[in-house]
Order: sequence, then C-alpha cells, then structure tokens
Amino acid sequence: MLLERSLIQSVGFRNVYQEGRATGFQFRVRMPSYRGMAASLIDGISVSVGNVLTVGPEVPLWSFEGRTYSLEQLWVSEGLRWPLEEAAVVTVPHEGGLPAGVHEVSVELRLRMSYIPMIHQPSLFRETRKITLAPEGDGGQFKYGVSLYSFMGDYGTVMDLETSLSAISDIGATGVEILGEGHIPGYPNPSAEFIDRWFGLLDRYNLEPTNYGSWIDTRLHPGKSMTEQEGAIALQRDLKLAHQLGFQFVRPKIGVVSDDLVPDPIWRGAVERNLDLAHELGVIICPEIHSPTPIKHPVVQDYINLIERTGAENFGLLIDTGIFQDRPIPLREGESRESRPAFLDGIGVDPSDFAEIAEYVVFIQAKFHDINDQLKDQQIPWNPVINALQDAGYRGYLSSEYEGERTAWRAIEQIRRQHALLRGIASGRGQSANQKVENHA
Amino acid sequence: MLLERSLIQSVGFRNVYQEGRATGFQFRVRMPSYRGMAASLIDGISVSVGNVLTVGPEVPLWSFEGRTYSLEQLWVSEGLRWPLEEAAVVTVPHEGGLPAGVHEVSVELRLRMSYIPMIHQPSLFRETRKITLAPEGDGGQFKYGVSLYSFMGDYGTVMDLETSLSAISDIGATGVEILGEGHIPGYPNPSAEFIDRWFGLLDRYNLEPTNYGSWIDTRLHPGKSMTEQEGAIALQRDLKLAHQLGFQFVRPKIGVVSDDLVPDPIWRGAVERNLDLAHELGVIICPEIHSPTPIKHPVVQDYINLIERTGAENFGLLIDTGIFQDRPIPLREGESRESRPAFLDGIGVDPSDFAEIAEYVVFIQAKFHDINDQLKDQQIPWNPVINALQDAGYRGYLSSEYEGERTAWRAIEQIRRQHALLRGIASGRGQSANQKVENHA
Repeated sequence: MLLERSLIQSVGFRNVYQEGRATGFQFRVRMPSYRGMAASLIDGISVSVGNVLTVGPEVPLWSFEGRTYSLEQLWVSEGLRWPLEEAAVVTVPHEGGLPAGVHEVSVELRLRMSYIPMIHQPSLFRETRKITLAPEGDGGQFKYGVSLYSFMGDYGTVMDLETSLSAISDIGATGVEILGEGHIPGYPNPSAEFIDRWFGLLDRYNLEPTNYGSWIDTRLHPGKSMTEQEGAIALQRDLKLAHQLGFQFVRPKIGVVSDDLVPDPIWRGAVERNLDLAHELGVIICPEIHSPTPIKHPVVQDYINLIERTGAENFGLLIDTGIFQDRPIPLREGESRESRPAFLDGIGVDPSDFAEIAEYVVFIQAKFHDINDQLKDQQIPWNPVINALQDAGYRGYLSSEYEGERTAWRAIEQIRRQHALLRGIASGRGQSANQKVENHA
Repeated sequence: MLLERSLIQSVGFRNVYQEGRATGFQFRVRMPSYRGMAASLIDGISVSVGNVLTVGPEVPLWSFEGRTYSLEQLWVSEGLRWPLEEAAVVTVPHEGGLPAGVHEVSVELRLRMSYIPMIHQPSLFRETRKITLAPEGDGGQFKYGVSLYSFMGDYGTVMDLETSLSAISDIGATGVEILGEGHIPGYPNPSAEFIDRWFGLLDRYNLEPTNYGSWIDTRLHPGKSMTEQEGAIALQRDLKLAHQLGFQFVRPKIGVVSDDLVPDPIWRGAVERNLDLAHELGVIICPEIHSPTPIKHPVVQDYINLIERTGAENFGLLIDTGIFQDRPIPLREGESRESRPAFLDGIGVDPSDFAEIAEYVVFIQAKFHDINDQLKDQQIPWNPVINALQDAGYRGYLSSEYEGERTAWRAIEQIRRQHALLRGIASGRGQSANQKVENHA
C-alpha cells in the first residue's frame, strides 16, 4: 500500500454517520515526519474547510487501527502509534456533514519532537488541498466501476494493485476493470500466488472483476500479417485468463486497417471461433466503439450483424463515452489543432443515438479527461449522456476511464469527482433546476 | 518494486565491461504505454548522450529477463515480453564507456501499435533526462552505505523497501541504514514474515545492515519528564530489535534540554544501563554529533568521558557531516535568514578537528543537500572532509543522508551523485589538479 504524496489524502474523505444522521466528516493524513511515532506525541490538528468551518487543534478525533481517540486520550496512551506507512484518520464533528463535491481542506498539524529545542516546538506542518468527498446517493440504476487504465503512469510508480483497489473501493464503486497485459504480473501465466492475492484483495475491498482489456496485435511481427487462426489463439488466451480471474467481459482491442479504425477483417473469424468458448466460460466478448468511430457507422453495424446472424449471447458492444465528447481536449505544449488527430476536438455523437443500439450494449467505459472544482466536466456532456442511458434502460456498469493529464496522483482525485458527478446526476435526475436547464441546453 | 516516473531510469545506468574493458553503457527504460507488450512490437530506440554520441534506433541491444537481443531478434521473437512493471535494459555499444558523472541522455523510443492507424505509426516516445553513471573506482579505505532517511517523503509514496534497496545496491553500496520507527512495519513487533523478507532482500541486493536509528522520546507525554529507567527501557527495546535485524550500530536520538542540543541528562543512565546488553548483542550505541553541535563541545566531551571512564567498547560517536557545512542551505519560499535557525547557514566545523576525536568515531552519516550537474556539492566541502577522514585513518562507513529538496524521486539521483563524488575523491586523492587546489583553498 502506498500513500498519496500530499499530507492530506483524497482517499478516505467522507461524511460520517450515526444512526443515519451525518455527524461530521473524516479524512486521512500522512505522517509528515521521516519516522512513525507514539500517538502521545501528537499535539493536535486544526482543520478548516473553505468558508464552512474552522476547528482548533484539540477538536478533531484520531483513529488508529480502527479505534478512535480524543487528543487527551492520545496523550495518556501507551504503545499506541502513528506508523509512517499508515495514514491517521482525523474525524471532525460537524452536524449535517459536508455537502457533496470538492472542498478546500486546510490543516495545521502539531507534533512534539523531543530532539528539537523547545523554542522551535511544537513542530508545525501546514497544508491546503482540494479534495472530493466520497460520493453519496445510490447512483440510480447503474453499477459503478473504475478501470485501472485510469491510473496510467501512476500504476507501478506511485500506486500498486492494493493502493488502486483501495482507492476504487473508497468511492463506493463495486467493479474493477483491468488490462490483462498491464496489470497481471507474469502475463500470460500469472503465479498461483498472484491469483490468490487477487481474489484476497477483491474480497477485502468488496470489488468484483468487470471487464478485462485484451489486444489482438495484428502487426505483431514486422512485414507479417496475422491470420484468423493466430487472432483466435490470442483471443482464446485472454478469454481463459480473464475467466480464471473472475471477469465477465473481455474487450479485445483489434488491429485496424484504416484511418477511421476499421478493424482488421480477421476480427470476425477470430471472434467467431471463440464464441463457444466464451459461452462455456460465461464471458462476453465486447469490442469497443471508440472515438472517432460514431454509433452510426458500418463497423458498429458489422458487429450487430454478427450478433443477429449467429444469435450469439456472448458477443456485445462496449461503448466508450469519449464518442460523446463535444468540447476539445486542450492542446498540449507544442501541439497544434492541425498536428493532432481531429477527433481530439470531440466527435460529439448525439447521446440520443444510444437508443438505437442499446439492446446490444453490455458495458460502458466512462471515458473522461477533466472535471473541475465545481464538478463540471470540460469535455463530456454527462447530463444528456446519463439521461440517454437511463431512457434506454441501460443498467450495467459505468466504468471510469480517466484519460486526462498524467500528473502523478491526479487520477485518484479525478475519479472521485467523476463518481460524485455521475451519481449526482443519476440519483437526482430532474431534481436540480440547474441540471434541468443544462439537460435541455 | 516501483519504477521512477520518468521513462529513463536513473537506477541501472552504468558502463558495461567485457574482459575488463568498457565496451558500452546501459540504462533502463520504463514502458511508456498503459500496457506491457510483446517485445516484437518494439521498433527500436535512438539514444544520444550529450555531445558524446548519437546512435540510431536499430543500434541498441535490449535485455529482458537477463537475456540480451538485437532489434532484429526481438522482431522474430515469440512469447518474449516487455512487461509494464519491468523496465527494459537498453545497452549501447560505445568503446571505452562513458566518463564518470552526470550525463544528459535523450531517447526516442518507437513502438508498433496495431490499433492505431498506420499514418500515426510508429508511436514515438521522447525524453531527455540527466542521470548519473553508477560510480566506479574502489572508493579507497571507506565502506559506502545509504540511509533510508535519504528517501524521506518518497518512502511509502513512490518507493517501497525493495525499490530502495535496489537503488542502493545499484551504486555499489554495501550498507543500509534504517530508522526503526520508520522502516519496520509493525514496529516494535515486526511479523516473522517481515523479518524473513528483510533478510531475503539483503541477500538479493548484497547489502548488510549498518546503523539503526532509534529515539528516546523524553517528552513522550505532555507535562511528564522521562526517567532514566524509562529511557533505558526505550533504548533496550531498540537494541534488541536492531540486533534481531542484523544491525551493528544503534543511534539513539535523545531528547534535548537546550537550544544547542544538550541532551536530557537521563541519557547517561539510559545508556549505561544498556552497555552490558549492547556488548552481549555485539551492537555499538552511538549518539550522533549533529549541527549545530561542533566537535569541540562539552556534549562531545561528555560522551568521550563515558567511554574513558567505563572502558566501554560498545559506545562510540557518530558524526553527521552536516557539521562541516560551510555554505548556506538556500532559503525556502517565504523563509528568511532571521526566521530560521542560524545553523542552516552552516556551522563550518574545520575538518581537521576530526583528528582529535577520530579514535572514538564508529560511524559517519554523510549528510548532504544538493550536488549539481558537475558533481559539485553546494554545501559540504567534501575534498577536505574526505582527506581529514583519510588522514585520521577512518575506515568505516560513509552512509548517505540526503536532506535536500523533497521533490519526488530526486533523492535517488542525488545519492548516485554523492557516491560518484565521494568515491572519486577517495579513490583518486591527489590525482586531480582541480581537487588539489580546492583542498587547499
């Protein structure tokens, strides 16, 4: 397990309830010293949240190993420790709790260091950070998940498997999506030890495996094309591994033969040869519809034709919500509109198009790039998208795919924002006048 | 194991030798994609090192799982993979290898992505980074180590235990120093599993435990002072744990009672009550002499008196090289000279003072803050310091304590620089005219 770099952690920020009533909020704080220490060396923490409240250093409660203490209780404690590797849980009493969304939290932590002269005591550690309250509300008819793809760049550098699953679980999501070749050490032959650990962690964090991303690398060797047979073998390998790890869906990413992502024609044979195996394993194969391919496109029709023709129950569509993007992704340094693929400006598929293919859609990757401090998504129009999914009766997963700026630790906070936003819309449809206006804009 | 965030890793950058002749250099590259992939999808990597050399994408060799391949061999490979979680080792043939020090390394990596239209292929990943060649030279009469303190802020956020030990081993260091309350999960009662893992990792990375940092927290409870008995129990706890983990030295950090770090008088009793235990365990207790306490100071004399009076073989001095600092640590944002302790400007102890206490010194923490691209330390005058240690016949450890800017991953590179610098001075004393001039400046 790894902690976020900042002292104030995003993961763990939530309202606390007693008998169904919010009585305060809590968040986690990383030890700022280079050592863990006895909890009796804590001299308190003052906390402010925006303009909402400020409390003095003696007010918050502290939890270690699942037990909660007042500051005075810490002072007389013996053997109780704040370890370097574990964040302390700080609970602030606040009747009614905090409203949903992003909050600017400031702390001043005081620690007593015996080896520092009294004139420089207590040691003070200050930090202000915007963090997002764990989403509340039942989230309507959808299931919520996160793809480990969201942590690209962070995974293996600032997050490991358990850190990732813990961050996903913390926002009340129930599903985890992985990339076979990214997140299975020893792929395609993981150790028995890894498999045990995988199921142990799912259990600990109350998560179920959802979709497993695989690749059919049609350009695997320079100067050679791939046969149907070879494609089928690649897909078979991943279907079996996905099933072994408990996944329900496999998204094969198929090599393309055109600028608008027409898949290599071997896709049909590679898939058809595996339909019986998929059925036997109880796994659904679902190629993704990804920008710049819109819903109304021959490729989508080809996939639907296969379903219609074969009556296959183990083949369906995966929609990446990037197709609904209606505002551009900001230009990166040195990038110009002309030098990058046009679809990065957004292909703006009309969310109402979803209704036409809804019956074939088995999984949705909730692609997004940037959600600001006011929980406004800068690229994806979630109100009409969520409404279209609701209208079409989609009841499956919304699985976050954060694809924005790859600054370390940013994804953790962005997926919190996305889940707060999506659950808010899905739970409260039509309740907010603002949302109504936006829906019909 | 975690990787550095940048594609080009510091750890692993070294000259390679065949039959005693440097025939090139190698470094490690993190997979820039969000997935691992078949090694046949690599389309090469071009490499430049400053003005020294540039090679085309087909030149470097690639190593996976300890075996080395040409690019053409990768293209026809089956089942060979570049996993997301493991850096590839890139070897560049270059007769004579690279000179010691910091090098600006640039790469352009090419990967073949079947799912991206051909007009955007191959996918290119470019990076330039300054990294330090693993130190060469025998390093003279000293032993070289690193304290995990160096990784403060990184440890538990971007580095774990194995990542740290691997980075230490990579620079040819043989010793590792830890902080008991920082680096032992479950302190003071680590699990048997941790202890097994600890010795397993030491073995894998060819490291020996050196010094173990402990605390005697004299202000453990507000309004209460600590008795000699309590101090003795605290020290006993750490002596036993240090011994259990194989450490030879224990540095108790003792609470202070004055602005110039005079230790709480209980130190004497707490130490004396443990001298027999230390002897039995074969551990040496060594309080540190740390800025602003100079060598010529009553506290140091008190420690020496204890040794002389008791004839104790299990008590000695630990010198922190911060006492030799002769140039200021730069002001942090918002900091002024007046608002911070004066000793941060450096107390500039004359390195020749070391001779007077050398016989009592059992361990040296090589404290430093910033070493620039030309391997010049900005605060510590290493030439006269190393020469004074050599003249006094010190043959123990120089154990790096990086204490500079806590930017993530910076410490890894800084300790590489320090070891290159220290080994250079210690191996080549008197060989460089520049160094000579500096020594006598």
